[in-house]
Amino acid sequence: MRDVYKKRLQQYVNMINVRLEQISTYRPSGSESVCEAMAYSLNAGGKRIRPVLALEFCRLCGGDIEKALQSACAIELVHTYSLIHDDLPCMDDDDYRRGRESCHKKFGEDIALLAGDALNSAAFELISSEAECGNISCETGIRLIHMLSSNIGVNGMIGGQVIDLESEGREITLETLNDLQEKKTGALIKAACLMGCVLGGCGTGDNEKLSAAGSYAECLGKAFQIVDDILDVTGTFEELGKPIGSDKQQGKSTFVTALGLEKAQQEAERLTNEALSFLSCFDDTGFLAELTMEMLTRKN
Amino acid sequence: MRDVYKKRLQQYVNMINVRLEQISTYRPSGSESVCEAMAYSLNAGGKRIRPVLALEFCRLCGGDIEKALQSACAIELVHTYSLIHDDLPCMDDDDYRRGRESCHKKFGEDIALLAGDALNSAAFELISSEAECGNISCETGIRLIHMLSSNIGVNGMIGGQVIDLESEGREITLETLNDLQEKKTGALIKAACLMGCVLGGCGTGDNEKLSAAGSYAECLGKAFQIVDDILDVTGTFEELGKPIGSDKQQGKSTFVTALGLEKAQQEAERLTNEALSFLSCFDDTGFLAELTMEMLTRKN
Repeated sequence: MRDVYKKRLQQYVNMINVRLEQISTYRPSGSESVCEAMAYSLNAGGKRIRPVLALEFCRLCGGDIEKALQSACAIELVHTYSLIHDDLPCMDDDDYRRGRESCHKKFGEDIALLAGDALNSAAFELISSEAECGNISCETGIRLIHMLSSNIGVNGMIGGQVIDLESEGREITLETLNDLQEKKTGALIKAACLMGCVLGGCGTGDNEKLSAAGSYAECLGKAFQIVDDILDVTGTFEELGKPIGSDKQQGKSTFVTALGLEKAQQEAERLTNEALSFLSCFDDTGFLAELTMEMLTRKN
Repeated sequence: MRDVYKKRLQQYVNMINVRLEQISTYRPSGSESVCEAMAYSLNAGGKRIRPVLALEFCRLCGGDIEKALQSACAIELVHTYSLIHDDLPCMDDDDYRRGRESCHKKFGEDIALLAGDALNSAAFELISSEAECGNISCETGIRLIHMLSSNIGVNGMIGGQVIDLESEGREITLETLNDLQEKKTGALIKAACLMGCVLGGCGTGDNEKLSAAGSYAECLGKAFQIVDDILDVTGTFEELGKPIGSDKQQGKSTFVTALGLEKAQQEAERLTNEALSFLSCFDDTGFLAELTMEMLTRKN
């Protein structure tokens, strides 16, 4: 079981990394610096959890993962843009990301800003290209673009970042923290799972699967964030590739400050189990179950 | 002739402003500040030249401008995002825009950054929504999204901004300046004209119209930029709503520094005439001809 899981995860991550590197080789004359910055952040070796989720949900719904690959990678472009902008001095002002200098430390603030901007719209270029060349239908392309764009705007990822900014240095309720994290981290993870189902062939009427994937994603996203908050306290620079204790330093409310370490850990475990319970309407969920557990026990 | 032009322009601008205000009223709980910043910049009373071009090309191709309105407004969202990010301290560091404080001066750098990000992806949300609700076909939606996204990335608008950044403080050739402006200003204007044709019903085989609209847009875009450069030297703060002489202060190469005032003016006139010559394959181009001339003689 464990070996099957590891092998498939490696296969997915390899596919994703190869495609992202292909995407990164496009460097029109005059734009070399911003393309280099985009490639630097895109190919920094993240966990690729979002595109992996999209590919696996596609497979679970009976789709062709090769045809889903480019759209799955579009989600990673959005994730990377959000990290680049989040690290900027006017935001979290983080000098390190994934064990090396953050994008603006390496390339300057101006180029980092533009690299994030370009990755944001390039995500939609990737998906619309797939539809234009017939790898996916235009109907599917439109649904994917709508799912992605509506989950990363003011009612999703950006909305979460705003609440995050406005919560700095003051205590917030657990309710606000939940709202913040559902949007900031959860929305893109949810988009990834739903987009995977659509890429796998789920139509607008496939409510049971889409609803189950959405509920699974909400629980996973929250558990994922709680573990992030725990690791910011218990991890090391070597494990995380970025300074630990940055949440505390920035006066951020986290699930650890809100619940304490022990209860935060229990809540992450509860949410992981709840996430798993939503997978019952799919067959062959061994991989996803292992992945979900690994998100709980990860060290980075 | 002049009255018909003015009346239609007013009608277009009103339609666009009303729709943009409707779009701006969506303010989910927790995101009020970023939504306010988006609305502030979006409703600052720009000329709306890009969505106007989209609506008029839609009409010239026999389409329904009501059904084109939301997609035309999406172009203005992208334009507004680019202005907000361009004004940021790490970019041009401009404190004024359209006669009032720039977005980051009013709302802070962090919120301005997020407002730009949100407007960027919201453009794609607007177009995909139109296709999901059936106002436009999914095929049309995909083509619009591909045209828009591919013209604002590293081979279009962002590419132009990179060349601009890297040219500051040193002399560049007229060839580089042309490349810079074709991408920075021209690409989005070209996208607007092409999207208008697609919204008007031009299929992938309608090469004559698409090619003519593209060539028109290239000439108009360059003439537009030359006039911008001239106004930065000859205009006043009251006319422009921003400090004059900012190009010189930032050591930027412009068409005025490259050609001198007189030759720049001649080149703008030549390009305007060339733009007009491309309209011959359309009927009823009186409005577009007036608009093109007005872009040449404008004072702001």
